[in-house]
Parts: sequence; structure tokens; C-alpha cells
Amino acid sequence: MKGNNTKPPSGTRDFLPQDVKSRDRVFSTIKEVFENYGFLPMDTPSFERIETLNEKYGEDGDKLMFKILRRGEQALSGETDLALRYDLTIPFVRFVAEYQDKLPKIFRRYQIGPVWRADRPGKARFREFYQCDIDVVDSASPLADAEVILALTEALSRLNLKEFTVQLNSRKVLGGLLEIYDVPTALRKGVLVTIDKLDKIGVKGVKNELLERSVPEKIVEQIVKGIESPVSDIIKRVEKSETGRIGLSEMWNVLNLVDPLLKIGKIEFSPFLVRGLDYYTGPIFEIFVPGAQSAVAGGGRYDNLIGSFTGKQIPACGGSLGVERILALLSNGEPPTISTQVFVTVWDKSFEGDALEIASELRSKDISTEVYVGGSKKLSNQLRLASERSALYCIIYGPDEKGKKEVGIKNLATSEQTRLPKDQLLSTLLGLLGK
Amino acid sequence: MKGNNTKPPSGTRDFLPQDVKSRDRVFSTIKEVFENYGFLPMDTPSFERIETLNEKYGEDGDKLMFKILRRGEQALSGETDLALRYDLTIPFVRFVAEYQDKLPKIFRRYQIGPVWRADRPGKARFREFYQCDIDVVDSASPLADAEVILALTEALSRLNLKEFTVQLNSRKVLGGLLEIYDVPTALRKGVLVTIDKLDKIGVKGVKNELLERSVPEKIVEQIVKGIESPVSDIIKRVEKSETGRIGLSEMWNVLNLVDPLLKIGKIEFSPFLVRGLDYYTGPIFEIFVPGAQSAVAGGGRYDNLIGSFTGKQIPACGGSLGVERILALLSNGEPPTISTQVFVTVWDKSFEGDALEIASELRSKDISTEVYVGGSKKLSNQLRLASERSALYCIIYGPDEKGKKEVGIKNLATSEQTRLPKDQLLSTLLGLLGK
Repeated sequence: MKGNNTKPPSGTRDFLPQDVKSRDRVFSTIKEVFENYGFLPMDTPSFERIETLNEKYGEDGDKLMFKILRRGEQALSGETDLALRYDLTIPFVRFVAEYQDKLPKIFRRYQIGPVWRADRPGKARFREFYQCDIDVVDSASPLADAEVILALTEALSRLNLKEFTVQLNSRKVLGGLLEIYDVPTALRKGVLVTIDKLDKIGVKGVKNELLERSVPEKIVEQIVKGIESPVSDIIKRVEKSETGRIGLSEMWNVLNLVDPLLKIGKIEFSPFLVRGLDYYTGPIFEIFVPGAQSAVAGGGRYDNLIGSFTGKQIPACGGSLGVERILALLSNGEPPTISTQVFVTVWDKSFEGDALEIASELRSKDISTEVYVGGSKKLSNQLRLASERSALYCIIYGPDEKGKKEVGIKNLATSEQTRLPKDQLLSTLLGLLGK
Repeated sequence: MKGNNTKPPSGTRDFLPQDVKSRDRVFSTIKEVFENYGFLPMDTPSFERIETLNEKYGEDGDKLMFKILRRGEQALSGETDLALRYDLTIPFVRFVAEYQDKLPKIFRRYQIGPVWRADRPGKARFREFYQCDIDVVDSASPLADAEVILALTEALSRLNLKEFTVQLNSRKVLGGLLEIYDVPTALRKGVLVTIDKLDKIGVKGVKNELLERSVPEKIVEQIVKGIESPVSDIIKRVEKSETGRIGLSEMWNVLNLVDPLLKIGKIEFSPFLVRGLDYYTGPIFEIFVPGAQSAVAGGGRYDNLIGSFTGKQIPACGGSLGVERILALLSNGEPPTISTQVFVTVWDKSFEGDALEIASELRSKDISTEVYVGGSKKLSNQLRLASERSALYCIIYGPDEKGKKEVGIKNLATSEQTRLPKDQLLSTLLGLLGK
């Protein structure tokens, strides 16, 4: 089996110890902020029944799902019955439908976990990636939207990404615009899909794709003109539509709540912001930080989605942080240090038990300790390995030390070596390590 | 879409907030112990190329894998190219092969994550479940096996599962036994698969299954007699085989290192312990605790596995804790408390911004704070929700308080309500919460 491909599958990654530490540090900061905002953790399985996920994400979603073959004899049929979750929102909505009676009222949840999309792999774009989601269920108030945006921006601030811009819109503003531009109803979904690509393909790209979608040239000209006009002009146009006015009002409500609380970052109305997914109904937002081409966070209100599972309309809104993009931005920072504090050398085979016993005593007080398990008897080899580990202290315990009921400690930074009574080892190390 | 099935897929679970908290508490205890033992975190994707996993787990493994359909146009072929990981060992071995030059020497890793097996669901047996693995690479020393067992038992102890029994064997002891019982080489793998089921199907079940496998009756009688004999008799028999003697010696080496360090728990030789997976070569173990029918942990030495990927023989050993079984045992304990500390009521729409501002101040000092986002203006309704949340304090801030630059605090346990200058709110709450 020599010559196997040992790389991770296309679009996925392995994580070396340093990578896991960096990621965990980001997760724990985010978790801390979410809990400060009263969000509670919950979790769902990695896969769902296909019918739970199908037709929830729009044009692309269904194509990009990882589908799982039936098991046992049914595998032969080539049929699939499960799919890896594509986001954390749809599984959460199923969860809310299932546990309605067990959940706290006006439930605030958070969830941190991987999702899977068979997208074309790219820079900081992976097929397995982490989302950190928060949602508020059963609140139609703009306060809920504001709390979601504030929690996400606070998390970014604590991660030292303070110069964020929140771009805010409402799906109803977009609805009003399409109405005013006279876009035929049948084309509206497609037009939004295209406008959503604005930051990727630019104004020209949008123009061409709209024409390809058979949107009448006059309308395309108007949309392009709109995209390039000052926001104040757009507001005047949107106000001419009833839907547009509702959209503007809910957008201003959220903006006026969030704006006074932002310190370095800012929030602004962005009338052509779409958010890809189909299920949004009200205010939507994306958060950008300097240095990242695409949004590091986004979300919005989805007042009809829970109803599609339960038959009972329950308003909800939420948002999501993209950890990979954040990690890519933080990667210049100081990596977290990882090191064993104490390294116990092993004199020879007859001292293995003694080495374990010394380690056991130190570990009982949470001193992280490694016993040498390699094949070399030479002390110099063992000390070299300890140095490579960035261990702080080495323990030396051989026949001479044992006879005198002593133990040797070597400080690996200074190379200073001392001996002390064995029964003082633990207290001495606790002192040296400031524990 | 009303009437959708909202349950999680068969064999999987959803986690309510309390469940996630319990699980996280177990994870963080385990992580702490593993780091005390000098193990470093690493991670791999949830799925692997099918050829990485195939033929590594023995008879059952290949059947129980969740396989993923190819994407795009290739989906039509019904072919699969990826599979969800079945354990954390094989992906780790691929990882070691790939990053040999980047990893610390004598690498100690830990990994905590879900694995997937399409097993028949049962009590505390799921199709998606968590494993907590540790492994030591590039050490042939029994010290490495001992460190693995000690770290796992220490984790169990810290989780208050102190009365564990480690059952220890060596694959070479089993090899010696099969030699002595004269089991034909072609039948040996199958015989081990059957003996592995001893704790599930009992001695009679083993006997019948061996006969079904066409093992000669005389041999079956000997195996059954062996299972029922005292360990001292088995040792005498095993010693007659060269392989058996090597196995006994490596088993004793590990047992004699671990035994003196166990306090309440114990370790014992268990000559018919098999461990299901194909890849073990030396010492193997399983850990049992009272109240659980099957093992809560297990592992062993797999000296040939890394070589099968790299062509270069690298000895290794490891072990795994099963979180689900541990959680089932702990479920009688006190559930962790989760509550928002402070609940900010909202007087009316014009006070929404003030409520957010108060919350923002408290959150900046890590006081977990929720702002009321529900639809009721009635203070009594808002206070009731705060009580349901087990919040400790409620903040009341209306026109009267605002006029006097004051703020109201209600202690929800005592119903005591006081007013204080608004600029003393943060320091007062920090004091009350002992922060």
C-alpha cells in the first residue's frame, strides 16, 4: 500500500497542533461573547435527511450538497437518503420545530460546528468549514436583529478585528427596487442571484449576466445605474414602493439601534446587498473587515422558515461568523505557545516505574509532564528532545539520586542544574512555575 | 411542507443546551488530562477518500461506513469517492504519513471529534458519536503503552469514574493461543472475530458461532475450556508457544508499569480480550466501569499500520475514550447550571437604545446579559421571562429612572428591588456577582 495518497481530500484540511490551538482560541473568544449575550449552546447531527435540506438554499445549494449513499443492501440502488449539513440554520429550524415545548421562550441559541459544501476550493474557501451561528427565535423586534449584529461585531472586536463595516439592507428594500425597476416577477429570483455576485464579478459582470438572463435591456440599464448612484438617490426611489418603505423602515430601526453602540467599526445602509440564501425575509447584513475580500459574517431575518416546518409562523433572525476567513486574517499574529512544562528523563529500563511515578505526582497538580518513551538511553539525547519540545525543566533520576533520596532538575533555558530532596520536588516545581 | 419529519436521522441525536454543557464539561476535563500528559491536539477532516479507509477495520468496518456520492455530473454514476471517518486512528495514520517531517519527534497527539458508523442504533450506541483519542508515535517502549493507559484512567478518575478495571492482553498472546489450539491459519481471523463477541453473546454463543465457522469440534471444545479456565492455567499453556511468550512478556511489562500507579481502579491480564479492529499487533486493552455493559475505553499497539502508508515501519500505540458511554454514566449527576446573570427589561420602544446601552456596558465586563426582545410591554411579563431564565438580577429603566439619572435593580431570588445612580450600576453588579 506504499505510495498511497496521504493528502486530505480536495478542499479539506488537516490541522497541526499549532493550527488547532489557534482555532480553539478563536472559538473560545466567540463562545465567551455569545454567552455574554445570553445565547445558549445547542447541537445537531452532522447529516440530515435529504428532504430536510433540499430546496432550502436556492439555485446552487442542492447541487453543492454532499449526499450519503444508503447502507446495506440498499447501497446497490445508488440512492442517497442523507446529506451533510450545508449550513447551521436549516438543521436548527428542524430542531426548533421538534423541541418547541422544551426550549426556553424567545430562545437564543449559538452553535459552533463544521458545515460542508462541494464548492470549488479557493483561498480561505473550503469544502469543510466552521460556522459560528447565533439566532433569536420568536421575536419580531428590531432589538433582536440589533442584538445579533452587536454580538457578532463584539466577537470581531475581541479578536482584534475592530475596523469592521456592517452593511445593512432589507429583503423588502430589494423587493421594492425590483418593483420600481419593473422586473418581471418570474425573473426576480434570478436577478437577485446575479446582484448577489456584485463583489465577485463587478458591475460589468452583473450587467452581462442580467442580459443573459433575458432581463430587458432598459431594466438592466436602470439596475446598473442604481448600483452606481449615491444611496440618497436610491432611498428616494425605494420610497415610492409600499414594500420598499416597509423595508427602509425596518432597516433604519436596526441601524439606529446598532450605530450608537459601535466604537471603531461602523454600520451603513447598502441597498444592493442580497445575501445568497433564499430564506431571508427582512433585514439582512454582511460584515466586512479590511484585508478580507468577502464578508467575515452575515445573517438576517427569516420569518417564514420555521413555519415551513411547523405550519405555525414563528419569526426569527440570526447570523454567522466564518472562522476560516477570520483565522486567515489573524494568521500574522503571535501563534499560541504549546509546550510541555516538565520532561522526565528515564535512566534505564529499571527506572521506568520511577519516571512514571514522578510524572504522576506532578500531573496530579496539573503540571504538564512528559515521560521519555524513546529508545535512547543517552541522557544527552533525551535532553535534546526536551529542548525541541520547549520544555522548561528536565528531571534526572538515576541510581545516585535514588540512593541519596534526591532528584536532579535542569532548567533548560539557563542549563542550570541542581539537586534537591525528592520529597521537595513537587513544591519546588509549583513554585518555579508560579502555580 | 407542514408535517415534515423533524426528528434527527436514525441513530443520531440533537443536543439541548443542557446536553451541550454536560458534554463540553466532559471534553474539557479530558482535554486537560491529555495536555497534562504532554499530548498535543491535531485534527483531520470528517471524511476521507474511500481508499484510505477501506480494508482497515476488518469484516464489519467496510459495511458500516457512510459513503458519499460523487458530486456534479459524476453523481449520476451512483459512485462514491469519500466516506465519513469510521474512527480517529486511520485518518491520524494518514496524517502522520503526510506530515512526518513537520511533526515533533515521538509525537504525542490527542484528538476529540465525532466518528460515524452505520451500526444498528442501541442504548448509548449511536451512528454519530464522539471519540477522544491519544496516540504515541515512534516509540516501541512499554512506557508508551503505560502512558496511554494512565492518561485514560486518569481522565476517568477526574470524571469520578474511579472504580475502573483495565483488562490487558496482547495480540501475540492470542496468536500463541490459536497456535496451541491448532486453529488452522485460514480460520484464525474469524475465530478472533467470534471470541471478540464474548461479552455480547456469552460462552455458548461463541461456541455456536465457532462451529458455524467450521472450526473442528475438538478445537472449539478446547477454546471454550480455555475461556472458562483460571488465568494461571492459560498462562502455562501460552508459555509453550514462542509468540505466546513474547506476548506475555510485553503484557507483563505494561501491567507492571501501570499497576503501582493505580489507586482505586485496577489492571488485570485478560487472555481472551481481542479488540475488534484488525490493525493491532501488540498489547491491547479495554477499560470497564461498574454500570456500563461495554468498555468505556480501549486501545492498543499498532506497529505495522503507519508502515502500510509510508513503507517505513514506525511503531505506535494509542487508545480512545467513548464519550457517550461516559455521559450515560454521569447523567445522574448534577447538571451544569446555565443562566444569564442579568436581564434588561425594555420600558417601551423609545427605551430600546437605552436597554442595549446598559447591556453593552455590563457585557464589556463579561457579565452575561440579555435584553428583552419579546413583544410584551408589561413589566410583569418581562420579569416572568427573566425568572424562567434563572436570571439573577433584572434591570428596570423607564422615564422616571431616566429623569433622576437612576436605574432599578431587582434581585429575582429575594424580589428585593432598589434604585441607585446609573453610573454606579456596573460597579454594583460586579460586586453583587463577586467579579
